[in-house]
Amino acid sequence: MRYLTAGESHGPQLTTIIEGLPAGMPLTEEDINQELSRRQKGHGRGRRMQIEKDAVLILGGVRHGLTLGSPVALAVENKDWSHWTKIMGQGPLEPDSSEEVKRQITRPRPGHADLNGALKYGHRDMRNVLERSSARETTIRVAAGAAAKKLLSFLGIELACHVLEIGGVKAEPPAYSSLSELRERTENSPVRCFDPIAERQMMDRIDEAKENGDSIGGIVEVIAEGMPPGIGSYVHFDRKLDAKLAGAIVSINAFKGVEFGIGFEAARKPGSLVHDEIEWDAGQGYTRKSNRLGGFEGGMTTGMPIIVRGVMKPIPTLYKPLQSVDIDTKEPFAASIERSDSCAVPAAAVVAENVVAWELASAIAEQFSSDRFETLRESVENHRRYAREF
Amino acid sequence: MRYLTAGESHGPQLTTIIEGLPAGMPLTEEDINQELSRRQKGHGRGRRMQIEKDAVLILGGVRHGLTLGSPVALAVENKDWSHWTKIMGQGPLEPDSSEEVKRQITRPRPGHADLNGALKYGHRDMRNVLERSSARETTIRVAAGAAAKKLLSFLGIELACHVLEIGGVKAEPPAYSSLSELRERTENSPVRCFDPIAERQMMDRIDEAKENGDSIGGIVEVIAEGMPPGIGSYVHFDRKLDAKLAGAIVSINAFKGVEFGIGFEAARKPGSLVHDEIEWDAGQGYTRKSNRLGGFEGGMTTGMPIIVRGVMKPIPTLYKPLQSVDIDTKEPFAASIERSDSCAVPAAAVVAENVVAWELASAIAEQFSSDRFETLRESVENHRRYAREF
Amino acid sequence: MRYLTAGESHGPQLTTIIEGLPAGMPLTEEDINQELSRRQKGHGRGRRMQIEKDAVLILGGVRHGLTLGSPVALAVENKDWSHWTKIMGQGPLEPDSSEEVKRQITRPRPGHADLNGALKYGHRDMRNVLERSSARETTIRVAAGAAAKKLLSFLGIELACHVLEIGGVKAEPPAYSSLSELRERTENSPVRCFDPIAERQMMDRIDEAKENGDSIGGIVEVIAEGMPPGIGSYVHFDRKLDAKLAGAIVSINAFKGVEFGIGFEAARKPGSLVHDEIEWDAGQGYTRKSNRLGGFEGGMTTGMPIIVRGVMKPIPTLYKPLQSVDIDTKEPFAASIERSDSCAVPAAAVVAENVVAWELASAIAEQFSSDRFETLRESVENHRRYAREF
Amino acid sequence: MRYLTAGESHGPQLTTIIEGLPAGMPLTEEDINQELSRRQKGHGRGRRMQIEKDAVLILGGVRHGLTLGSPVALAVENKDWSHWTKIMGQGPLEPDSSEEVKRQITRPRPGHADLNGALKYGHRDMRNVLERSSARETTIRVAAGAAAKKLLSFLGIELACHVLEIGGVKAEPPAYSSLSELRERTENSPVRCFDPIAERQMMDRIDEAKENGDSIGGIVEVIAEGMPPGIGSYVHFDRKLDAKLAGAIVSINAFKGVEFGIGFEAARKPGSLVHDEIEWDAGQGYTRKSNRLGGFEGGMTTGMPIIVRGVMKPIPTLYKPLQSVDIDTKEPFAASIERSDSCAVPAAAVVAENVVAWELASAIAEQFSSDRFETLRESVENHRRYAREF
Repeated sequence: MRYLTAGESHGPQLTTIIEGLPAGMPLTEEDINQELSRRQKGHGRGRRMQIEKDAVLILGGVRHGLTLGSPVALAVENKDWSHWTKIMGQGPLEPDSSEEVKRQITRPRPGHADLNGALKYGHRDMRNVLERSSARETTIRVAAGAAAKKLLSFLGIELACHVLEIGGVKAEPPAYSSLSELRERTENSPVRCFDPIAERQMMDRIDEAKENGDSIGGIVEVIAEGMPPGIGSYVHFDRKLDAKLAGAIVSINAFKGVEFGIGFEAARKPGSLVHDEIEWDAGQGYTRKSNRLGGFEGGMTTGMPIIVRGVMKPIPTLYKPLQSVDIDTKEPFAASIERSDSCAVPAAAVVAENVVAWELASAIAEQFSSDRFETLRESVENHRRYAREF
Repeated sequence: MRYLTAGESHGPQLTTIIEGLPAGMPLTEEDINQELSRRQKGHGRGRRMQIEKDAVLILGGVRHGLTLGSPVALAVENKDWSHWTKIMGQGPLEPDSSEEVKRQITRPRPGHADLNGALKYGHRDMRNVLERSSARETTIRVAAGAAAKKLLSFLGIELACHVLEIGGVKAEPPAYSSLSELRERTENSPVRCFDPIAERQMMDRIDEAKENGDSIGGIVEVIAEGMPPGIGSYVHFDRKLDAKLAGAIVSINAFKGVEFGIGFEAARKPGSLVHDEIEWDAGQGYTRKSNRLGGFEGGMTTGMPIIVRGVMKPIPTLYKPLQSVDIDTKEPFAASIERSDSCAVPAAAVVAENVVAWELASAIAEQFSSDRFETLRESVENHRRYAREF
Repeated sequence: MRYLTAGESHGPQLTTIIEGLPAGMPLTEEDINQELSRRQKGHGRGRRMQIEKDAVLILGGVRHGLTLGSPVALAVENKDWSHWTKIMGQGPLEPDSSEEVKRQITRPRPGHADLNGALKYGHRDMRNVLERSSARETTIRVAAGAAAKKLLSFLGIELACHVLEIGGVKAEPPAYSSLSELRERTENSPVRCFDPIAERQMMDRIDEAKENGDSIGGIVEVIAEGMPPGIGSYVHFDRKLDAKLAGAIVSINAFKGVEFGIGFEAARKPGSLVHDEIEWDAGQGYTRKSNRLGGFEGGMTTGMPIIVRGVMKPIPTLYKPLQSVDIDTKEPFAASIERSDSCAVPAAAVVAENVVAWELASAIAEQFSSDRFETLRESVENHRRYAREF
Repeated sequence: MRYLTAGESHGPQLTTIIEGLPAGMPLTEEDINQELSRRQKGHGRGRRMQIEKDAVLILGGVRHGLTLGSPVALAVENKDWSHWTKIMGQGPLEPDSSEEVKRQITRPRPGHADLNGALKYGHRDMRNVLERSSARETTIRVAAGAAAKKLLSFLGIELACHVLEIGGVKAEPPAYSSLSELRERTENSPVRCFDPIAERQMMDRIDEAKENGDSIGGIVEVIAEGMPPGIGSYVHFDRKLDAKLAGAIVSINAFKGVEFGIGFEAARKPGSLVHDEIEWDAGQGYTRKSNRLGGFEGGMTTGMPIIVRGVMKPIPTLYKPLQSVDIDTKEPFAASIERSDSCAVPAAAVVAENVVAWELASAIAEQFSSDRFETLRESVENHRRYAREF
């Protein structure tokens, strides 16, 4: 499975083409819209999130509710496009364009792709960068991930995400007995947090940051249950599934780190308290007494839940000014903006969940016969049985 | 640039083929051996490290000290191969093979690839897994990375690595004024640590773990200075260079997490204290007042030093027994071994440095005209000048 | 450079996402429409070609007439979509759908992907195959190729195509003094043939086939002039540019073979009459006295014109019945259809030209610094000068 | 499945690393040596072929006669290496090296990669090119192909190759009743030709070319029987299996064209005589009355034998001089050599067979669950049954 995305933040639409989904899998716009809607929630989002409710169009690869095996094209139109047809128009600039249309952005914002992107691609107008580097693009990655997540759900693999930390407020480790319970609680939390006390504090911290004209980041966790063991491989470094997940998480806008299981804590514990002891019973086959390694050994799934966390830095668009330099005049200026989100961590958790879903589904589609949805389902079931009996 | 590796821990040799190095670049076995030797050092290594001194053979792609542009083949022979020709022989097992040769490993070690790998590939003898999943393979990845590092050095890009934490002992953040200083200090430290007090404590902690039959992990940091700005790209998620580095770090055996710049601390600081303000002067062009983002914005280099850290879990091969299950009898047993390293973190730092070097060199070779070493050097120089004048 | 395409023949639209075009390159919908229009011409096309005039929409990656460096999204809408919203709708089939909507195609046409595609993807309704396997998809490949061709044109690389043979009528080898001359003649020929006598006979042969309810194929030639020498590489089999072109040509619907330069004639001539002697003069550098090898030696361009030919089989949709078997009833039936093109060779020549353009542009973008259009242009110019002075 | 190769013609060895073979498959050096030996036969080979008998070493990825799932490393050592250690040594040139060692090749041979390769990689000594561009490299591609062919044989897929034309002598289309019969006849023919009359004439033509100091090319055919239907895909252009085969054939040194089934003859026949009518019976499922399309429709296998032909140009190393230019002096000279093969077509047929085997095995491994040899075998069998019952 592979996919490409295109589209600028204020362009006509975001587009993705997904190649490699099995044929015969149920998939509707509604399946995808659900994930898009989850991504739009969260305490601390600015105005833009409220005006647009994202909706996907399936423009190829699906017929009568089932995937065809051919590439799936998805688009999320920009509802505000009518206001942007000139500034973001694809046609050559007309000589009599208004000043507004011709105005160039020459002031790079610290923490954004603006300066390096402009330099790399030779743009003197940094709108040409920020329109694409914007986290708006994660919308369409979520759309692609939603298709992957649908596939996983049919294979008995469920995902959830939640927020562990925002602006220094740490939640208690969530004591959930099932992913349903975790989801029920966190889907209704304005900050996707399981711990009600931390939730309240996180919201306060977000409001506080907003008042200060500042922004805050946080840590999100994605959990995937039901992955069969032995997905991914140790035989070649670029086939390790945890390595692929790590790359996927860090590829999300503003993510600066990733860890699995106990993660960085592994530097502080003896091996005897890190590795997960192996058990066996006739019904389930092999299991582990613990899951400190987060579902991976040797770059392969162990069959235990996958636990992956990512850290998101605070949104770099601040009311509070940061020093920068105009690329035309070379004059310093104070970079600040008029309105913005002060915290996007709850939404980023949804993005993370969906990019994880993509990698898991890809790994499964690659490992098993996956032309036909039914065959894939059978292959995975056969593998599960085989693993139990190994 | 791409490379494949092959070879089992006790097989005849490790092999790599590297495709895509520019032609006309000086490269000798000695260049590579230096890195192999760095990888073999470190307090806490077991006996194996002492008996073998790894040495590379260049078996293709280099003539008279210069790369040819054709693929480079490297091999590191197993000096102990004569003792393993039967157990690891490639020919079919002879009927009269000794019991020693026919003996199967049926007891998976927790924390290793043994069980999942056996299950995935259908091996009832888990030697078939552990021979490849062994960290011995990182030797040849270091060899490939050494070639990449050589290329970078000619382009004015220098790397170093050091150890920040072992078994809970944290070093002070290293206050070095140049990479040379950092290297001088850490290359002579038995634990690659800049901080002499922590160094002593780390060694003690390693010895303590050894006595307890336990093992400990730690955190390593890789620094790369001199990368031009604008390497990598924000335009598509799979072209972000930090994401590639994240994948590369986690693909190293036993690594469970990765972070850039202030990393997970970004969850605890307001945006105004996370983003790096931009400055400009006529001589250097754009610089940053700080480097909290570790050299990356928008998946691209900023021109500031790249700072990436990875966490290594304790080696899972312990004297202290962990519970496991024999895959033939399904009987539980206590997994323990007779001798092993108790800490491989200092060596892992060298591995991390070399896999980072590979990704950086690949990104540069991809971005610039790179058939000829001289042309690549010029392209990079032109880009640096262009960036200064942007 | 890479691209994906999506879309079914009677679906809402064809879509492509192109990743890797340099930033700052002029590109308009008109540039692409020109190629789409060339593809729609040709004696022997059925009714569909006449009712639709394809027009592209640029939906991402281009602003104010210039590429942004970000992925370019293109769509060609189906003008007839309003008649197909039910039969090809993406939503689940409603229980009260009409018989027309529910009707399944169970009769595979020999020579099409119908049967194997249905089997592969588990489709009992072969519409699910033929909608994607249709040559309609070449429209969007031409759109992608048109962007590549634009890039090449700025680098002084020009392409043309013409028809050498249709239904057994062979044209004289075209004696053109420049590509402009070739183009002028063939763009105005209803069968894209340079030879006016053969042109007349080809048209007759097409009409004859139509009357017989049959179809005919032919041979097309693509010529690219101005490619610098040394593009592609001999160092690894999968980097040979002629091999990539061969794959690209055969990937066009209905193409069954490909050859370069004198091609299959090379089996009949002694080496002394096959290889191209090398000359040199101070102005041009190295040239060849002849171009029997069609612009390639060792998988690399020689700087001579690239000459590649492909053979297209007759369109398999015939009025004249061919024997087949219903996949539901297993009853034999005579496969025939009511209307179709009898010859698509002139259009296929345009497709071939554009897929060749894609491969050439990709190879150049890969070999040189290609983030910025201007830098790429300079890199290619520097390489040309270097080659002249080598 | 993927592989890289390395090695120069007179370097110490040729090497390949093959990644992705299923685990548990029997594979021995002897399996591979058989193919290497087939490649070395043929009337018209020069002296080099006689002095060396190629033998492979398996240096990783195989234990006790079975693949491990880990990458397979293969090497073919250069038996003449002791004479080349200085000229082809990897270490820097010593100041007191002999003239012979320092002598540079500055005279490009027409038809070889010499000139373009030198220019591309900046080599003033064209030995740096010809050592890698030499057809010697096909030895190791055959080794990789032999492993693939072994896999196919276990899946009931058999390949054969033969020579259809040499130097203008055309064989009668071979009337064989089974691949065994074809093989028996052609393996014993000095020119791999089924037709005894043509065989004699081909040998004469080769001798004649030799006497004239000239060389001749020819056409080879590869046949693969037993491929299940539906391998490859129509859904995306780069997934068409015939397109991959076309690329693979043209990537063989000196190949200038490729065709499938009736190939270029499709330009001369009406559709009603090109497409293969479909039949069905309860025992076999769907079959075709003919196989003019060479086993492919829509880029997928039909289940009929795959028939692919390639044309090889005459070897460009001739006794008969061709005009060229010294790259140092720019003086023209007459390129000729002292000894060479006059015809390598029979050997090239073996190379073609093995590269085809590689592509087929890769396509199968990609399409089905292929971690374990047994699972792959079952998956393919299940698919065959499913196809019969479709």
